Amino acid sequence: MTATLEIPDLGWREGGQGVLRGDLLRLFRKLDTLWLRWADAAGALEIEPPPMLPAHALQRLDYFASFPHLATFACVHDEDAENLAVFGKHPWQADGSGLALGRLAPTTHVLTPAACYHVYLDLVGQDLAAPITVTLGTRCFRREKEFHPLRRQWAFHMREIVCVGTAEEVRAHLASHRTKMLELSERLELGATFEHATDPFFNPGKSARYLMQKIDPTKEELVFGGDLAIGSLNFHRDTMGAAFEIRRGGETAQTGCVAFGMERWLFALVQTHGLPGAIAAVDRELDGGDA
Amino acid sequence: MTATLEIPDLGWREGGQGVLRGDLLRLFRKLDTLWLRWADAAGALEIEPPPMLPAHALQRLDYFASFPHLATFACVHDEDAENLAVFGKHPWQADGSGLALGRLAPTTHVLTPAACYHVYLDLVGQDLAAPITVTLGTRCFRREKEFHPLRRQWAFHMREIVCVGTAEEVRAHLASHRTKMLELSERLELGATFEHATDPFFNPGKSARYLMQKIDPTKEELVFGGDLAIGSLNFHRDTMGAAFEIRRGGETAQTGCVAFGMERWLFALVQTHGLPGAIAAVDRELDGGDA
Repeated sequence: MTATLEIPDLGWREGGQGVLRGDLLRLFRKLDTLWLRWADAAGALEIEPPPMLPAHALQRLDYFASFPHLATFACVHDEDAENLAVFGKHPWQADGSGLALGRLAPTTHVLTPAACYHVYLDLVGQDLAAPITVTLGTRCFRREKEFHPLRRQWAFHMREIVCVGTAEEVRAHLASHRTKMLELSERLELGATFEHATDPFFNPGKSARYLMQKIDPTKEELVFGGDLAIGSLNFHRDTMGAAFEIRRGGETAQTGCVAFGMERWLFALVQTHGLPGAIAAVDRELDGGDA
Repeated sequence: MTATLEIPDLGWREGGQGVLRGDLLRLFRKLDTLWLRWADAAGALEIEPPPMLPAHALQRLDYFASFPHLATFACVHDEDAENLAVFGKHPWQADGSGLALGRLAPTTHVLTPAACYHVYLDLVGQDLAAPITVTLGTRCFRREKEFHPLRRQWAFHMREIVCVGTAEEVRAHLASHRTKMLELSERLELGATFEHATDPFFNPGKSARYLMQKIDPTKEELVFGGDLAIGSLNFHRDTMGAAFEIRRGGETAQTGCVAFGMERWLFALVQTHGLPGAIAAVDRELDGGDA
């Protein structure tokens, strides 16, 4: 992993969470403006999704079998007054390790693990007469074994540009963004390269989907510094279309998404240019790049 | 409660969550630009906080005794492989009411219930030589008995402008924004008025803090249509300063915040003007208002 970097304007909180301030926050905004321009150039609709997904939406993907280790659940107490009162009086475990939760209400929602699921959920049951492209930026939550500022956080910002269409339409979407991402990496002097990758399945040796991804790669990651994936291109074929019952011209729709891990871009840019230099580089891009 | 309104460009998901699209999302952005201008005029620093708060930060405020019914907890499984595998194989309760969670890891974090807590947490142990003003916009999570699109959501956007200083400095901050909010409501023809209010304490009759708020009101809400609080002014005196060990010139700091419930402003604006009219009204404000 890339050496630790002192990041100006970054606060770091226990539990793998960052606070962005000042110039680092300005850099974040400028970068997102850049992706929004890319999305606009691709004719994307923009949505602001809610922070949680219904568990049954993730069940359509067998998410809990594939990624049980990553999920963060939105839990609330059963609203029985005595149940709440007991928790209110004694909210801590005796050993101080965490909260002494009482009886929970049914757990129906999961904190968003990947932005694009919101897009498919909005299209359940539809048959599209034309491809659609949607962009959304949202916090994603993934519980990991360890956290590193900007590089691996429990909660991080993901910007995606998602295409739902025929295989050909989706392939064209991914190919055009592959080129744009490489050219951008070059102009920003990041030296990032695309590498085939797999999703972080639980118990991968036993996962048919993992084996499938190994045999027939459908995920490419844009890797900075040899080990930090700052973006990815994901071709889901008809997995999402089948799971969410989305069709395109009568056939099961195919889908693909272009994803940017926003905090990791901040890391890569600041590591490469320092913070003022990173802002200047993205400003140049916004002023005159191909975006 | 105000009559149900057909909101264009709003998606509504089970679990009290909204999806903003198109012109409604544009209106949201314009409104936030307006608050950011107000924050800038008040000399505020801006931060982008993480979505979760450490439970021990809320414990400083006795939050779990006061608001156990509102809290949403960020829960994850104990990472033992067998524990995860069992959940992955049988993720649902037999009655389908929710997920069949296995053994949880210690619960250490809570989804942000109010934006301003992030500000105090960042200042723990500091003695400020001058007042500081901070703005932040973030998703807040409050579990309620029922939800209504834009008006009462499990997750909603709150923009705050927070002042930490002496009593006099905080009072001046709140007073100037009280005037600005009333003038804005008038220009936008919302007809909103300030009313004294209390926080939604659990078991209020037994809460010393609730009784205190009744006797000596320190919370005013800007109320639209007779029953919808779209903003609030909160004077915490030294409650937050004492809880988070923040001083101002050697004395326990006083704090106050100006808060805007973003979705509720969308509701009030669209109810009053329709969506195109609401955008035009906020555009006029951005072009020439006193912001």
